[in-house]
Amino acid sequence: MSLIVQKFGGSSVADAASVRRVARRIVETKNAGHDVVVVVSAMGDTTDELIDLANEVSSHPPAREMDMLLTSGERISMSLLAIAINDLGAPAQSFTGSQAGMITDGDHGMASLVEVTPFRIQESIDAGNIAIIAGFQGVNRQTKDITTLGRGGSDTTAVALAAALNADVCEIYSDVDGVFTADPRIAPKAHKLDQISSEEMLEMAANGAKILHLRCVEYARRFGVKLHVRSSFTRAEGTWVIPSPDDTTVSMSTKEIPLEQPLIAGIAHDRNQVKITVVGVPDRPGIASRIFRLLADAKVNVDMIVQNVSVADEPTTDLSVTLPETQGELAVNLLRAAEEKIGYAGLEYDDKVGKLSLVGAGMKSNPGVSFTFFDALAANDINIDMISTSEVRISVITSADRLDDAVRAVHTAFNLDSNQDATVYAGTGR
Amino acid sequence: MSLIVQKFGGSSVADAASVRRVARRIVETKNAGHDVVVVVSAMGDTTDELIDLANEVSSHPPAREMDMLLTSGERISMSLLAIAINDLGAPAQSFTGSQAGMITDGDHGMASLVEVTPFRIQESIDAGNIAIIAGFQGVNRQTKDITTLGRGGSDTTAVALAAALNADVCEIYSDVDGVFTADPRIAPKAHKLDQISSEEMLEMAANGAKILHLRCVEYARRFGVKLHVRSSFTRAEGTWVIPSPDDTTVSMSTKEIPLEQPLIAGIAHDRNQVKITVVGVPDRPGIASRIFRLLADAKVNVDMIVQNVSVADEPTTDLSVTLPETQGELAVNLLRAAEEKIGYAGLEYDDKVGKLSLVGAGMKSNPGVSFTFFDALAANDINIDMISTSEVRISVITSADRLDDAVRAVHTAFNLDSNQDATVYAGTGR
Repeated sequence: MSLIVQKFGGSSVADAASVRRVARRIVETKNAGHDVVVVVSAMGDTTDELIDLANEVSSHPPAREMDMLLTSGERISMSLLAIAINDLGAPAQSFTGSQAGMITDGDHGMASLVEVTPFRIQESIDAGNIAIIAGFQGVNRQTKDITTLGRGGSDTTAVALAAALNADVCEIYSDVDGVFTADPRIAPKAHKLDQISSEEMLEMAANGAKILHLRCVEYARRFGVKLHVRSSFTRAEGTWVIPSPDDTTVSMSTKEIPLEQPLIAGIAHDRNQVKITVVGVPDRPGIASRIFRLLADAKVNVDMIVQNVSVADEPTTDLSVTLPETQGELAVNLLRAAEEKIGYAGLEYDDKVGKLSLVGAGMKSNPGVSFTFFDALAANDINIDMISTSEVRISVITSADRLDDAVRAVHTAFNLDSNQDATVYAGTGR
Repeated sequence: MSLIVQKFGGSSVADAASVRRVARRIVETKNAGHDVVVVVSAMGDTTDELIDLANEVSSHPPAREMDMLLTSGERISMSLLAIAINDLGAPAQSFTGSQAGMITDGDHGMASLVEVTPFRIQESIDAGNIAIIAGFQGVNRQTKDITTLGRGGSDTTAVALAAALNADVCEIYSDVDGVFTADPRIAPKAHKLDQISSEEMLEMAANGAKILHLRCVEYARRFGVKLHVRSSFTRAEGTWVIPSPDDTTVSMSTKEIPLEQPLIAGIAHDRNQVKITVVGVPDRPGIASRIFRLLADAKVNVDMIVQNVSVADEPTTDLSVTLPETQGELAVNLLRAAEEKIGYAGLEYDDKVGKLSLVGAGMKSNPGVSFTFFDALAANDINIDMISTSEVRISVITSADRLDDAVRAVHTAFNLDSNQDATVYAGTGR
């Protein structure tokens, strides 16, 4: 008998019929002889509706009260799911994040887990129950106030419980079949991966793949939790996200890691970045660090950085960075305010950029990868603005209107195309 | 400076606009120099909608999970109200029943308070906040499971907090101006009472007046909490419900009790009773007790009882009882099953009855009350089926179709009619 943690997102429990369908699925797992712990998000659009309601009474709702308000969403879905499961004859109990021992700091709206103490969950499953836990929420140990974990919070709840309960697997259910080699809406010949290493998944998530939140993958990697990303609409296997042996000391019990990874895992893309170029920066030591200090102090997440080589007779350089669209205005304002202090000649702002990332743990030992990659882009007349690399990834910035072509070109060049078109792929909720 | 507990029902916070209106009212009280603790019910029809949702997934939802589900209703209204109050510049914090120290037994769906320990509420108001508490809910100390208090639960939460915090008054807000001498929908000349003793209010509530739940009045009387029943739509004073001096040792600080109560407080009526007559019961000791034991064991709430005098040559009697409509079928089935054991001749069932109760603390020392009462009914050709009395009440059973006439006739006979018609009167929610 194994312990399985299953996480269902808001779209899987959007209405009473969906709740009953998910309940049947959970009971099947239980009847197959497993202990089952379920993490559930708020139903469908509930969270957005609650936010709208708050905005109707205030333009600046306090974060503590917003957390109290939003956590009612999971309270509804979890109790309803427990009711539906009981109706199928299997005992189930629902628990809030606080009852499940999800202890956080006091950063309302984006709290971090500081400890996970699921004593009541362990008791409940030991007593033969299916335990249903509200995703996305916890409690501040100092103030006893209710907190929410922010984006990706429900996935993180599931992984954190799986780690604390030493579960055999954490299944992340959504309306997607698994992790694909690229977004099938852009690359119709993308295919589902049977497995991916957590290191590769980390790069995919960090560079635009929406199927799993970066935070959840980081947590799973750190605590050696095996993830199984799968669809709640089919019985088919999805994608296993396997912690690398050197990432963790937790032993793998149900899924063997193959000796050789495939060369390339997949292609991630991101349309939500902007490029800012600071033109004519004095090419002196300390100037670049002054710019990055400015942005770091305001918590701007700078992603890629490129500095042009300055030529001898022109003692200035151009510095380009990419960052999330949502922080673009903030960054520009900060740079404008510091114009005199930095002494640059001008600012260029480009929100028509796209980022493409090729991810694969095998690429670092294969010199042909870079050639194939850049050759595919060149053969399709796709101009490259910026380049950055890591051990398992190459990323480029292109113009936004060529991003889709770039994804397809690279997908084909690395022989990732399958023989049949993929089903359509969508992002998951919180 | 005094401490005021204010309770707002679901109709007072039915939408965002109502929440803002109630928030302004609360802030006015705070700005007048008082400490304010607010108890709030779920918004409008939220509770009914949640029940519908549960019924869509199960025909027999477990009580523990129903309590978890339903308590999300107050979680939404309380946090939204706190957000709206903060928007007006006054600090406010919301608290669940559990956080507010509403400790109950484990009787899900109809839990009883076993202790009230509002430490966090006291801290919050000491820190200058307005504290908003979810009505209707608590926590089972043994299992740590969330419970609900059942009907009248929010009123009871307010009174219990007022008692535990030693509040100066507990204000119960609804869409009604106060307690009326009779239901103005039936007696248009009914007028609002400025005050009523808790003993009289107890009889009014127990005999059909819906403005306050019996349980809340009992709690207020027991702990000497002064209630002020008023409308959230006007600034006018409502009705003060004053504990009698001998009911309590708590000192009265803001409202003096007059030396002489008015003779009659008002008229309550109840359409939700049925009359069962057991015909031809052997007139022997022990037979009646056998019938009542039968009903008591099944928790049937027998209200009025009348036994006919038996005549010498006919050693049988007829026994009539009234009880809540909802228990009528149960009682008939119990009596039928025990037909041989009791040995009666027949059963009569009448669901076309009404009950009228005249309530007044001054009536017991005034022999003219009974005469005026029965004379008014007789003068209007209203037949009386059953009579029962207490120290402060006379009740009669009439046919249902004459109940309204009876209310008006008695109202007029005791000079309760005001010169102008009352505004329409409605029951309060949970």
